[in-house]
Amino acid sequence: MKENQFVLGVIVANHFGVLTRVSGLFSRRGFNIDSLNVGETEDPRFSRMTIIVRGDEYVKTQVVHQLEKLHDVKRVELLEQNKTVLREHMLIKINTKGGDKNDIINVINVYRAKIVDYSADSITVEVMGEPSKLDAFIEFSRPYGILEICRAGALAMKRG
Amino acid sequence: MKENQFVLGVIVANHFGVLTRVSGLFSRRGFNIDSLNVGETEDPRFSRMTIIVRGDEYVKTQVVHQLEKLHDVKRVELLEQNKTVLREHMLIKINTKGGDKNDIINVINVYRAKIVDYSADSITVEVMGEPSKLDAFIEFSRPYGILEICRAGALAMKRG
Repeated sequence: MKENQFVLGVIVANHFGVLTRVSGLFSRRGFNIDSLNVGETEDPRFSRMTIIVRGDEYVKTQVVHQLEKLHDVKRVELLEQNKTVLREHMLIKINTKGGDKNDIINVINVYRAKIVDYSADSITVEVMGEPSKLDAFIEFSRPYGILEICRAGALAMKRG
Repeated sequence: MKENQFVLGVIVANHFGVLTRVSGLFSRRGFNIDSLNVGETEDPRFSRMTIIVRGDEYVKTQVVHQLEKLHDVKRVELLEQNKTVLREHMLIKINTKGGDKNDIINVINVYRAKIVDYSADSITVEVMGEPSKLDAFIEFSRPYGILEICRAGALAMKRG
């Protein structure tokens, strides 16, 4: 996580329109979302959003305060960096026409990444981990030629 | 993927407000989003959304058509199930107070899942794979007691 980023876990009612209300709040007020994820929770009535926001202490306080006032928002958790498991997920399709496939596969093993598709001209790799690990894998792949990247918003959960 | 679901890959300009426009389109028209993900792409000017939508052929045509008309939407890809790599990512915190930890750890190995946090009373596990695999892991964990689930929207990429 970068220095001026903070992570929110937001539990919302599984309604229609709640995503629009939340993202509308951010765009109206000019808050920057770096990553966003919406998915199911253990309770089908609720969804969970994980949002990475860029901003200073003032923005942080404002975002939490404004979110809490929104209809359909049940709980807002500010996840502190050292007490949080932060994981990202990426699919990346690498051109294998030019380079040595073995070289790519060795690095995939080092990263404990996984090949999820393999064709004559390309390999699609699934990489998981801290955001910085994903950045490093992208840098490694660049010389081969990156055909496509699909990077999910980060997931975050309190430790312990 | 369920029978009445379809998957869209949408490339959008990395602007402020584009998420609000896209989610607003869905809520105005009453289209159901089952999962949504926004993340970076290989080009910093663009983000990529992966959206799983529920609906019939009519909804499918309408969604694609309406999205293409939106400002800031650069490309809409309808990803066919058998030509697509579909992967989901989940963090799940399981209560380990009552049950046998070894039993849980054995199943984690079978699923090739990963323990990302371990405390006296709980284990946090990262699971990756097809959505049905994640559902199966949740069912396995239920008797132990699920303390928290954080499930990301699916990532999807064309094969080959």
